[in-house]
Amino acid sequence: MKLYAVIMAGGVGSRFWPRSRQHRPKQFLNVLDEATMIQNTVSRLTGLVAPEDVYVATHARYADITQRQLPYIPPENLLFEPISRNTAPCIAYAAARIHARDPEGIMMVLPSDHIIEDVGRFQEVLRAAVAQASTPGALVTLGIQPTHPATGYGYIQFDGNLADASDTPQAFAVKTFAEKPDLATAENFLDSGDFLWNSGMFIWRADSVLKAIEEHLPDLHTAFEEARPSFLTENEPAAVRRAFDLSPNISVDYGIMEKASGVYVVPGSFGWNDVGDWKAIYDLSAKDDRQNALEGKAIVVDSADCMVHRDTSDERTIALVGMKDTFVVETDDAILVCHKDATQQVKHVVEYLRAHQLDELA
Amino acid sequence: MKLYAVIMAGGVGSRFWPRSRQHRPKQFLNVLDEATMIQNTVSRLTGLVAPEDVYVATHARYADITQRQLPYIPPENLLFEPISRNTAPCIAYAAARIHARDPEGIMMVLPSDHIIEDVGRFQEVLRAAVAQASTPGALVTLGIQPTHPATGYGYIQFDGNLADASDTPQAFAVKTFAEKPDLATAENFLDSGDFLWNSGMFIWRADSVLKAIEEHLPDLHTAFEEARPSFLTENEPAAVRRAFDLSPNISVDYGIMEKASGVYVVPGSFGWNDVGDWKAIYDLSAKDDRQNALEGKAIVVDSADCMVHRDTSDERTIALVGMKDTFVVETDDAILVCHKDATQQVKHVVEYLRAHQLDELA
Repeated sequence: MKLYAVIMAGGVGSRFWPRSRQHRPKQFLNVLDEATMIQNTVSRLTGLVAPEDVYVATHARYADITQRQLPYIPPENLLFEPISRNTAPCIAYAAARIHARDPEGIMMVLPSDHIIEDVGRFQEVLRAAVAQASTPGALVTLGIQPTHPATGYGYIQFDGNLADASDTPQAFAVKTFAEKPDLATAENFLDSGDFLWNSGMFIWRADSVLKAIEEHLPDLHTAFEEARPSFLTENEPAAVRRAFDLSPNISVDYGIMEKASGVYVVPGSFGWNDVGDWKAIYDLSAKDDRQNALEGKAIVVDSADCMVHRDTSDERTIALVGMKDTFVVETDDAILVCHKDATQQVKHVVEYLRAHQLDELA
Repeated sequence: MKLYAVIMAGGVGSRFWPRSRQHRPKQFLNVLDEATMIQNTVSRLTGLVAPEDVYVATHARYADITQRQLPYIPPENLLFEPISRNTAPCIAYAAARIHARDPEGIMMVLPSDHIIEDVGRFQEVLRAAVAQASTPGALVTLGIQPTHPATGYGYIQFDGNLADASDTPQAFAVKTFAEKPDLATAENFLDSGDFLWNSGMFIWRADSVLKAIEEHLPDLHTAFEEARPSFLTENEPAAVRRAFDLSPNISVDYGIMEKASGVYVVPGSFGWNDVGDWKAIYDLSAKDDRQNALEGKAIVVDSADCMVHRDTSDERTIALVGMKDTFVVETDDAILVCHKDATQQVKHVVEYLRAHQLDELA
């Protein structure tokens, strides 16, 4: 059975302002190295999925930037979401398209804006998931072995225990999906040994997921079955537009995974980071002995636990004097100065810019 | 008796980096309004001293910027210090020059980088000082009525008490000059009612101060008497250079005022601020209801007690998120991010720049 990848790249991610903009969200940024996050997402499939078998699902407004950044992906593998919807419609679209090409094909659904440090281990975990997913009807997800009681992730409880798990990745039946917990609940999850972080990565045969969609979200199934005859014709955009208009705005987790049977998870630990905000970039950056992560022309006087990050063709010398826990991000037209504990509020800057018709900055 | 002003403008003031630079120190900056500090220093003498009677003592490297900013001052009234020395040599030079023109002339020695809000009251206080200084031998200084137990100023104890002082400015005999005190001492000074802040402003007849210099700093007196025949000739720069080389590096406070007899002070209260650091600019700036002093394109999310100040032709939008007590200063080539309590450390940035041969930024 052949492997396909579907890279989910429709997000607008305003928490990385001023680097992220409406026309260039996080997945198209190179925040930690030369390649962008979506380029790294494709690269780490090398040896597993060939470029011609990689699909990218994104908003129509990102057609150009996607083609510029991933020129080796065939144009017909770019699946444009005509409107912003949650994950279920876009996955239904991709599943129908791949099913039309190869009904038994196994598709890996992968977010485009995560970082994975240990690619070798990641591929081992993926292979175990693929092995499980080759059984008709199986829906497989990857679960991240938690390292701390995070309250920002959903959790997956599985039928087994991390304490007993072998070093070889293997699939377990899923018992429950849990929403983002409070801290006490997260601590209980960690103590129990059978909870994993929900990675948002899925592996299944195209026919398996379509069957599950048909059972649990029949309207969604019907919408894309009606669009199917137009696939790869000039009528595809209009047909897909109609299908999206008829689709519920629902996540695949909530709409399918929590309700379906035959759901499995492969626990893994491969240096995963969903890079949710500037704090994550700071955590992942090299630091000096005062825990400052500095980039470019920076001068530090009596300052610690700070970050200077930039993306500008006109770099200015940035001096930090007496600062602590402060992130400075410089771009050509904007400068963010943000407290380390306030990174989740950066999106309010973007809201302000949009509300004040400052869209060129938003 | 005619009045002359000597504006002291030789400082290099690195605490206003990145706005202040070696080639453009604080006195040549417009930090709070359209005019620069030295322009305001001259303007506030309007009605008291005519431009042709204003002298500016500054370092030779500031010849051009001084002439550009004060084009109405006669070129021969610019007195260039060939080397950086404390205040005594430069005052000796100015006194000798004015004495050669008008031995009984009264000269007011004024720093070029202070702010005075109530110019009318300032002139009243100056007139009282001039009245006292017209007595041969009298050396008069202005003392600022303290508003809080500042530890950053020298103090002057006078023969009287603020509680008894009339509203009409008047001169009192000086009892002592005190160095910058610790907080407990400063509190005692305030409680006593007979201590004033040392403003660094002096008023005296040219012949009075020359006589005091002759008595207390005879080498300095000799040095400039030897230079005197060259005044207003092409030999003046070389003669003044020799005089400075022979001069002690000493302040007029320490070298003369603390030792001389016939020393008086006129207490005054006229919205004086020596604008010693960015904190002073923040204190003097208009603020919003969260005590943010913002200039230009600034967006504030959950931030208070901050300042955004700039001087750039290429202004960037600056967003503060979750910040408190933080000053951001933007120029064309540098950005300072400084904690409100660390403004005195800004000079270390300049030291770093000089130590690393980054002189174009220093």
